[in-house]
Order: sequence, then structure tokens, then C-alpha cells
Amino acid sequence: MTDFAATKAMFDLPDGVIYLDGNSLGPLPRSVPERIGAMLRDEWGEMLITGWNKAGWMAQPMALGDRIGRLIGAEPGHVVMGDTLSLKVYQALAAALDLRPDRRVVLSDSGNFPTDLYMAEGLLKTLDKGHELRIVAPEEVEAAITDEVAVLMLTEVDYRTGRLHDMAALTRKAHAAGALTVWDLAHSAGALPVDLAGAGADFAIGCTYKYLNGGPGSPAFIYVAPRHAGKVRPALSGWLGHDAPFAFDLDYRPGSGIERMRVGTPPVIQMTALDCALDIWERADIADVRAKSVALCDRFIAGVEAACPMLTLASPRDGARRGSQVSFRFADGYAAMQALIARGVIGDFRAPDIMRFGFTPLYIDEADVDAAVAILSDVMTNALWDRPEYKARAAVT
Amino acid sequence: MTDFAATKAMFDLPDGVIYLDGNSLGPLPRSVPERIGAMLRDEWGEMLITGWNKAGWMAQPMALGDRIGRLIGAEPGHVVMGDTLSLKVYQALAAALDLRPDRRVVLSDSGNFPTDLYMAEGLLKTLDKGHELRIVAPEEVEAAITDEVAVLMLTEVDYRTGRLHDMAALTRKAHAAGALTVWDLAHSAGALPVDLAGAGADFAIGCTYKYLNGGPGSPAFIYVAPRHAGKVRPALSGWLGHDAPFAFDLDYRPGSGIERMRVGTPPVIQMTALDCALDIWERADIADVRAKSVALCDRFIAGVEAACPMLTLASPRDGARRGSQVSFRFADGYAAMQALIARGVIGDFRAPDIMRFGFTPLYIDEADVDAAVAILSDVMTNALWDRPEYKARAAVT
Repeated sequence: MTDFAATKAMFDLPDGVIYLDGNSLGPLPRSVPERIGAMLRDEWGEMLITGWNKAGWMAQPMALGDRIGRLIGAEPGHVVMGDTLSLKVYQALAAALDLRPDRRVVLSDSGNFPTDLYMAEGLLKTLDKGHELRIVAPEEVEAAITDEVAVLMLTEVDYRTGRLHDMAALTRKAHAAGALTVWDLAHSAGALPVDLAGAGADFAIGCTYKYLNGGPGSPAFIYVAPRHAGKVRPALSGWLGHDAPFAFDLDYRPGSGIERMRVGTPPVIQMTALDCALDIWERADIADVRAKSVALCDRFIAGVEAACPMLTLASPRDGARRGSQVSFRFADGYAAMQALIARGVIGDFRAPDIMRFGFTPLYIDEADVDAAVAILSDVMTNALWDRPEYKARAAVT
Repeated sequence: MTDFAATKAMFDLPDGVIYLDGNSLGPLPRSVPERIGAMLRDEWGEMLITGWNKAGWMAQPMALGDRIGRLIGAEPGHVVMGDTLSLKVYQALAAALDLRPDRRVVLSDSGNFPTDLYMAEGLLKTLDKGHELRIVAPEEVEAAITDEVAVLMLTEVDYRTGRLHDMAALTRKAHAAGALTVWDLAHSAGALPVDLAGAGADFAIGCTYKYLNGGPGSPAFIYVAPRHAGKVRPALSGWLGHDAPFAFDLDYRPGSGIERMRVGTPPVIQMTALDCALDIWERADIADVRAKSVALCDRFIAGVEAACPMLTLASPRDGARRGSQVSFRFADGYAAMQALIARGVIGDFRAPDIMRFGFTPLYIDEADVDAAVAILSDVMTNALWDRPEYKARAAVT
């Protein structure tokens, strides 16, 4: 059983803050500053160029990939780090489309994070072969999986509402229709158990600065199923994905398996922070994290609904169909969130009207939830929007 | 006049090491560990998600771009940081080809760094429109600029030999032929004066971990000439290049000018290191750096040629036609470089037979050059390859 008091002690959280935005940027693991200081002085400073081998920098993207792979049910040696989530979307989708050359539809939903859709749009324009990016409502995805679809590209947990797709069922349906899948795990990795191999997912991608606490700008990851990894053509064919990067050949020859999804020089300082952050998972079990996350979210929903009738639940009420966040709709949500942040409860706002709260058991507990509910209730009942003149205005607009 | 003793004191160089590999990875600026420690504790740790605005993280890619822009003759507001050099090659080349839809040749040379060629190869395959990547010898580039050429894509300084292309002349010739230019400044930025605006360059890209000392994995930069910046279509259309990233629209709408070349979340810790490293340029003038670099390289060539007749100069003898490095050919160069590194003189080896030495006046002086020559001479005359049995073997192979 995970000792959550122990994991909470591994983070450096500011006094007077209840941090419900770990779904956007995880907090600082306590060990990071010292470890990065040592990396800077003892590795960059002392080893200089030899650090690439001597300190293992060159091997880090695969080593960290495996650490994350264990949290998302990937086969060992099939996850690699690098770049940003946006770029990994591009790589995964380009590789998937290449495996389905006779089809022209990329199916996604309006709950996907915009950058996934933007990157897809850019790729399809570059391909210029008449592909269609078909965007349906999240609840219509299953019915929209037809034999026109080349790739089903979804984010498992909706960044606004927290709604959770059924990865196994949708992947099965996609495969039955002859389509491939690209799963974005931005709000899944470190938040809930993912079983990529079990679900038969083809490609997966994710970021590491949310529930994995790698810090601002921490690199992304990409997974390619073993059955595809040795076959896919990398659209972003950089030298570190070459079979022999230091032979300096003029022609590209893809590296073996997932290594071909490497592109350029990896961000060693950021990877060092991420490596520290992943140490926390040596003490935590993802099944325990999930169970506690559902309980914390349920507790928050109950508390808020009892105290703040002006807020409307935007997340699924059933914890099994929800990620690790709770969202409420409120017309003046932006201002309300600012007021809440001023009181030390940090959540965030997503246009047009979503107040979003992430629950991260590694460092958030029941007392935090109760305190957050009390402060939110106070803000909502004593702030501008509770006054008659605001209500009159809100009723009109 | 730049005080090079003062700039040298701004670096943390290991005792007993003469570091002639700053053209591969610059050394640690002394201010980096403390500054990053402060960023981790006071920004990530204390501000958490609010650091994106409060600490200015979101504005860093443009702010750092401008700092680098001043070193490469870019117009203010036309350079932005992000990702890796490989990805910036892809962005620049894709944008340039989009502006020349009726042409099918990308012209480069065999002295270009392989990842530039690999990324071009990957892009052209993705485009699948019959483009040709035409690779000629460096000295044949000028004659190969014909009206078939859509884009001339070159690295200004050859990573192996240090040969310097004439950016202004080749850009003029390219424009006269109706072609656009993509200049890779990996071995130029911070090494010698570059005048992008004066040369009329269309696109430029570069890395920041060499002569700019940003640390392992420091982000890359991209420049787009003002006349193109508001017109180009970003192939890698990520959310941070969107006109309104936080509106979370479903459709992509490019940001104004160079901002559209942003893709995903920037690596804040790496950018902090780079920002420190760029502080050094407040004390250094790039013209002074260039003058001293040429003198150091000349001194090294003279010393080595006098002491090591078995080494053959691979770099241009004329300092005006050379970057900030000196290379020698030697059949057993790999082993020789290993022996040299063991003696504390760190250069590097590039296949098949290049021993490469970078000269970086910010922290390398005449005494370092003389000491390096003496040690190299000792290694070359007293090591294996000076013995008769080696010479007999080398004569056969």
C-alpha cells in the first residue's frame, strides 16, 4: 500500500497553497535542485563533452522511456523521450498514416487537446493528399469509427471535463474497422493505470510535466507497438534516430525499433529533473494512486455541490469514467478562479467557462480537499457574483 | 575591446583540462548552477503554474531569440527558440519549399551536418511530390545554383573542416536564380559575426550548446526574414504558434510573424541555463571574438605543422575562409584523439579521419594553444603511431 504521507513529503509545496493544478504543471520534487546542481557541476562542468557517454546522457531518453513505460503498460524498450507532445503527435500520426496509405480520414474528437488537432491539420496539409481531419463530439466517437478511418487519434482524458475514453474498447473497434490508434496520455500517465499492450494500442504519446512532475518543459514520450516499431518510417528523421548517428553518413537509415523516433540532441538538464521526479514512483503504486484519486474527486464533488449551487459539474459523476480532475462550469469562471488563486487554492480556467481542479494523491490529501471546498465556498458566496447586481447581469448575458 | 581574461573567469573549467571542444559542447558558465537553483526553488517551486506568466517563462523563447538575434544580425523580433536544430531544419525547409511550389530541387552539400540532410530527406518523402535532394561537394555549390533550385540549404561552417561558405555571395546568387536560402548557423552563432539581414538570408537556424554555451540539449533557434515571416505556413503547427494559444480553438490560425514557429511547451530549465550563458555576451564583442579566434587558430596550425608532420591540415589555411575550428587528418585519428584526451587536451574525432579542435576565445587563450600543441606533439611522437611497426601497417592499409 502506498504511503501517501511519505510521497507528499517528497515534494516542496509552498506554505499556504493548496495546489489543485498538478494536471497542468506538477510541483517541484524536493530532490530536484540538489540533483540538478550535481549534474551541472559534476557532469556538464567536469565531464564536458564526455558526459554524453560517461554520465549516460545519450542513453537517458531510452532509460527514462522505460521508467514511464512501466506506468503505462508498455513493453520494455518501446518508449522513448524527446521534444514536446506536439511533435510526438506529428511523429505518431505521420507513422500511422504511412501504414494506412489507402485511407484518408483521421478521426478525432472535440475534447482532444487543440495542439493535437493543430499538428494533425499541419501534417495533413503537408501531405496534401486529400486527407480529412474529422472531428466529432466525444460521445459520437465510437459510432464514427468506420472503414474510411485510417487513424483514430484521441486523448484518453478530456483536458476540460476529465471524461475518460475506453481505450481498450475503442482500440478494438478501430482495429475491427482496419484503423490504427494514436492515444494521447497527457492526462493519463501518472494519473491512472494505462495498459497500452493489453489494449493493443498502436501508438501513444504524452507529456511529463503534469502528473509525472518533470517540471516546466520536461520532454514528451512516444510509444510504438512492437509490431510496428521496426517498420514505421520516421517523418522527423533526425540524426539521433539514425541507425549509426556517429557514422555521419549522408543518407538516413532508421535505427532499430523505437530508437528511430529520436530526433535531435536531448535536453539533458530537463531529463535530469524528470529522472528525479520518476524516483517518486518507486514508492507509489499507480493502482493506489487511482483509487485515492477517485475518492478525492468524489469528496470534492460532494463538498462543492453542497456548498456552491451556482457551480455546475462538468465532469462525469462516475469516477470510473473520469480522469484525475474535476471541472465545474461557471459563466464568470475566469474571475472566480483568479479570486480563488488569490486565496491560495490553485486550479485553472479553460475557456469558455470551465473551472478545473486536478487531484494528485502523491501530494494532495483529504484535508486539502476539505480546505479547498471551504475556501471555494467562501469565494463563491462572498464575492461579486453572489451580489444581486451580478446575478441580474448574469441573467441577462 | 573585450576583456578575455574576464570572460574566461566566467566559466567553470576543470583543472588540468584544455578544452578544445567548445564547438561541440560549450563549458559550464559559472553562474548557471546558482541561477538554475533559484529558478527551481523560487519559480517552479513557489510560483508553480503561475510561473508561466509571473516568471516570464512563456516570453522566454522570444526574449532569448532576440539576444541571439543580436549576434547573428537578425532584425529584432525575428528569432525564436525551441526544440532542436533538426526540427528547426524541418520547419525552415518546409516553409521555404511552400514559397517555391513550382520547383523540385533542394540543393545542399556534402559538408552539411548529416541531420540537416536526414531531416530534408524525411520531409521530401513526406511531401511525396518528386523533390530531389541534390548534394554536391562544397566547392561546387555556387555552380550548382540553377533555376531548378527551390531552396539552397547549407551549413555556413563545415563541421568537419571548418570551411566557411560566403553567405552573402551564395544568397545573392540563389536569389538571382529565384531560389530561397536556409542557413544553418550551428558553427557560426557565437563564433563569428553573421549578418543575416545584410546578407538577405531567408531562413536561418542554429543550436545553442556549442559557441553559445547553453548546455547539453539547450534549445535551437530559428530566424525567418521579415518579408516571409507573416506569410509562411508552419508545417509543425503547434499550439504555442497559434494566434491565440489559450483560446483553445479547434482550428489552427498562425501567430504573427516568427511566433508561428513556436510549437510546444518550451524547456524552461534549459532556457534558464541559456539565458545565463548569453549574459557573457554582454561583456564580449563578436568582432573581437572573431579576430582572436583567427589568431588562435593560426597559432595552433603553425605549432602543429612544425611539431607533427604526420598530421595533414584539413581546414582552410586562410583564416577568412575558416570558422572557429582547426581540423587535421590522420589515419588513426580516433586513437590519437583518445590518447590526447587522456592527457587533458579535449578535442574530438569525426569519421573517417578528422581530428577536430575548436578555439573559443571566451575561455581559450594563447597559453592554452601552446600547451595543447606541446601535448599533441608529445602524444604524436611518443605514441604507437610513431613506431616503425605502426608506420609499416599504416603504409599497407
